[in-house]
Amino acid sequence: MKVHVSKNQLADVLGHVERIVPARSSNPGLSLVKLALSENALVFSGSNMDMDIESRVTADVVGEGQVAVPAQVFGQVVRALPGDQVELSLDDKEMEIVSGAYSTRLQLVDASQAPTISFTEDLEGELDAGQLVSALSHVRYAAATADYQAIFRGVKLELADGRTRAVASDGFRLAYYHLDSTSGLSANLVLPARSVEELIRILDDGTVRLAVGEGQLALATSDTRLNVKLMEGSFPDYERVIPSSFPVSVTTDAKALSEAVSRVALMADRTTNNRVDMFVKDGTMQITAEGGFGRSQEAVTVNQQGSEPEIAVAFNAKYLVDAVSPLSGQVCISLSRDTAPSVMVDPENPGYLAMVVPLRTG
Amino acid sequence: MKVHVSKNQLADVLGHVERIVPARSSNPGLSLVKLALSENALVFSGSNMDMDIESRVTADVVGEGQVAVPAQVFGQVVRALPGDQVELSLDDKEMEIVSGAYSTRLQLVDASQAPTISFTEDLEGELDAGQLVSALSHVRYAAATADYQAIFRGVKLELADGRTRAVASDGFRLAYYHLDSTSGLSANLVLPARSVEELIRILDDGTVRLAVGEGQLALATSDTRLNVKLMEGSFPDYERVIPSSFPVSVTTDAKALSEAVSRVALMADRTTNNRVDMFVKDGTMQITAEGGFGRSQEAVTVNQQGSEPEIAVAFNAKYLVDAVSPLSGQVCISLSRDTAPSVMVDPENPGYLAMVVPLRTG
Repeated sequence: MKVHVSKNQLADVLGHVERIVPARSSNPGLSLVKLALSENALVFSGSNMDMDIESRVTADVVGEGQVAVPAQVFGQVVRALPGDQVELSLDDKEMEIVSGAYSTRLQLVDASQAPTISFTEDLEGELDAGQLVSALSHVRYAAATADYQAIFRGVKLELADGRTRAVASDGFRLAYYHLDSTSGLSANLVLPARSVEELIRILDDGTVRLAVGEGQLALATSDTRLNVKLMEGSFPDYERVIPSSFPVSVTTDAKALSEAVSRVALMADRTTNNRVDMFVKDGTMQITAEGGFGRSQEAVTVNQQGSEPEIAVAFNAKYLVDAVSPLSGQVCISLSRDTAPSVMVDPENPGYLAMVVPLRTG
Repeated sequence: MKVHVSKNQLADVLGHVERIVPARSSNPGLSLVKLALSENALVFSGSNMDMDIESRVTADVVGEGQVAVPAQVFGQVVRALPGDQVELSLDDKEMEIVSGAYSTRLQLVDASQAPTISFTEDLEGELDAGQLVSALSHVRYAAATADYQAIFRGVKLELADGRTRAVASDGFRLAYYHLDSTSGLSANLVLPARSVEELIRILDDGTVRLAVGEGQLALATSDTRLNVKLMEGSFPDYERVIPSSFPVSVTTDAKALSEAVSRVALMADRTTNNRVDMFVKDGTMQITAEGGFGRSQEAVTVNQQGSEPEIAVAFNAKYLVDAVSPLSGQVCISLSRDTAPSVMVDPENPGYLAMVVPLRTG
């Protein structure tokens, strides 16, 4: 078996596969990537149990067959190759990789040692890949990292007629991103946040086809197929806790606000949940923080609206900065009294909404 | 006391001081930076016991006095300031920092809590700071990281009439960088490698004045004064182990050789000391490596000279790559037989020499 392939294309595909396949595993088969040679293509596949990936690269192929090789070593060798083109020659035991004046002979493993993976051909749903990535990447930050409640370590994907929405929450804050496009499917899925990160990195432009199967979401682009294992359990009904009216709303530049909050929060303590206090009155938001090293404040000019002349509210500064971080222009913050959550939206893009539960004042 | 100062100048100086002053310490005084206000200058000083630093920034100052403040918090606040100018107002208890719409009040500590540091005024030696940095940064990599022999975790500075030389070794490899300039001092000093790294970052252009005192080297530039604690013990006599004749020498492009060695070494194992084998004959250097994953090779064209037609030698690939890394053009490698070390020099810059002890062949 002989293959001629572009070094850069091979490195790109292996880069994706290596993100999934673990470098080391107590199950040694899991660190293998399977290579299948077919007419005009090399097909790589691997798994980390939570996600399966199969990615193909166009190549001149003579012969056919399947072998397996440790994914990380193969990826390191391919990235280091000196030439633009790569020649692979395979027998049952070794793969010779030649590029420029360099050659290496990698020991092969029988393909049966690699995980058995299957992909459905029946993908009836469809979304724009860029839009799906945008939805997932806007909300990813709000998922929990500690296991306060396991389901919060996932990102919910709501697929319904006329709408597609990604939602994440850790119980103290929530973010959703709403797409007007319809996938053609109807399901509520929770994907592990780690798998969502890989999807954000692997999917790019074009169309992604979708299917919901037994405990998993299948995705396919023109050159990559993925299975994502779903989380069990149901996501709490978040819509009923989003307030619908607010005494005060402010609109201001998202980046400037985020920098001001971060700067003031330098004086906040971990013992006070990284607390910053905000007081809005007469078109000015006064941000203050206090801790063992001292206290700080900054005034930010805002476009103030609402039924009441002033409001005081306190937040974990990190939650506020995270909520504003996906926005590049203005942010509109609708502030609630007492323990009711406040809501941040992008005036230019009504698809994004973030909600943050305040810290107790007084 | 009131100070007006440029934000960027203040941030630069604090950046240097923060590299020395530890963020946390079991001795809380050690994490403080002392601020001394004098006419037209703010002077910062601190220590990590191995190095003392004093750095000054020009400023409009009203009043005089000394206070101390936690270095890391002060640095974080200054870097985050929104304006180009900073106003500091100090009393005994607090420093108010105002810039743009932001202000913070940092708790001050009595200056007596900060380490007591003194700097000699009597600096009779002198070197070009850029040249000293160049010498130290060429050899730093060769110092030991593990405590095989404590003195090897330092960089030797040889100050003699007509020569200045930096030397580092870990017993398996050695590097020196020779300057033709004379400091005017005569001493052999060993500086801790960690302190050498800070010197490389802190010193820049201009002249550095030098003095050797009781167990320390004092350095001064126009705005910064430093004391570096010296290591005790004497550096082995390395010159007698540098071979003077070699059966084969090769000259080739340093970067291309380094990349080829790194590429081939991907198949080398930790169990074989990351071993690469080299065989030179007929103007070609054949580089090979072998390990559990397979074996690899690459041929590099070299300009070969010497009394013998061929030579085989093996190295730890990392040592070879490190030795060549400071060179941007050609490298000339003089190869020895058996266990004698090989020597790498820069044909364009005779000041640099690296020596690597080979691995046993056969």
